[in-house]
Amino acid sequence: MPIFVKEIPPGYRDWKVVSVAHEEGNFNSLGAILGNELAIKAYREGGSRFPDGAIIAALHYSHTSSEENNKVFGRSQSFVPGVPTNIQFMVKDSKKYATTGGWGFGHFANGKPADGAFIKTCFPCHNQVKARDLVLTRYAP
Amino acid sequence: MPIFVKEIPPGYRDWKVVSVAHEEGNFNSLGAILGNELAIKAYREGGSRFPDGAIIAALHYSHTSSEENNKVFGRSQSFVPGVPTNIQFMVKDSKKYATTGGWGFGHFANGKPADGAFIKTCFPCHNQVKARDLVLTRYAP
Repeated sequence: MPIFVKEIPPGYRDWKVVSVAHEEGNFNSLGAILGNELAIKAYREGGSRFPDGAIIAALHYSHTSSEENNKVFGRSQSFVPGVPTNIQFMVKDSKKYATTGGWGFGHFANGKPADGAFIKTCFPCHNQVKARDLVLTRYAP
Repeated sequence: MPIFVKEIPPGYRDWKVVSVAHEEGNFNSLGAILGNELAIKAYREGGSRFPDGAIIAALHYSHTSSEENNKVFGRSQSFVPGVPTNIQFMVKDSKKYATTGGWGFGHFANGKPADGAFIKTCFPCHNQVKARDLVLTRYAP
């Protein structure tokens, strides 16, 4: 079983924005991707290498039609975060997480970590983007 | 002509996240809504009243299919920020912007402010949400 992130890093809700994301299909999510200071610095320097201590957080919510916005705009077009679905983290520690490219992966729903079997599915996808140090999300200007 | 925001508030890209948003239709946008410290504090206290000095920023990008993410996931489902389209601001100054509910509105595309005729269209919609001090975006947990 891979080593994974079992505790939510403190203060993540106050971190700076990396980007935003919308996933259709089973995910049906609208998300904010945030980074701690080390992660943001690495992104702004090109995002090809993240130092130990860098953490990236993905806050996911259900992709939900906003009736109140649609009413104001007079058009049905607006989607906003609905219920929070999960929060995911990538924590860089090249020793602790050596077997998964130096990154520990974490997934929390209702504050509870997912189990190792679930987390095992993170690395194979992330490992496809070696040029960006296994980080899928690009920095939004 | 209403008074509007003609200069981009400094440092906005480092502000904390209020929420994210997806607009279909003509907008076709994916956005991050950020707030300066005064705005975030007001949001976390309920968001029914924003003090002078509060600023809310909406960073809009084209809602763009991510071919590289879809390839990694093996499914066509992922949308990310494409080209930046505009940045909008709401600046609270109850004296300066008294005629528009205490808020100055600004819209910048390629760093250039929109003209007064365009900005005139902001207030009537925002003025429909008086219970939240004219702020449409709700805080995402």
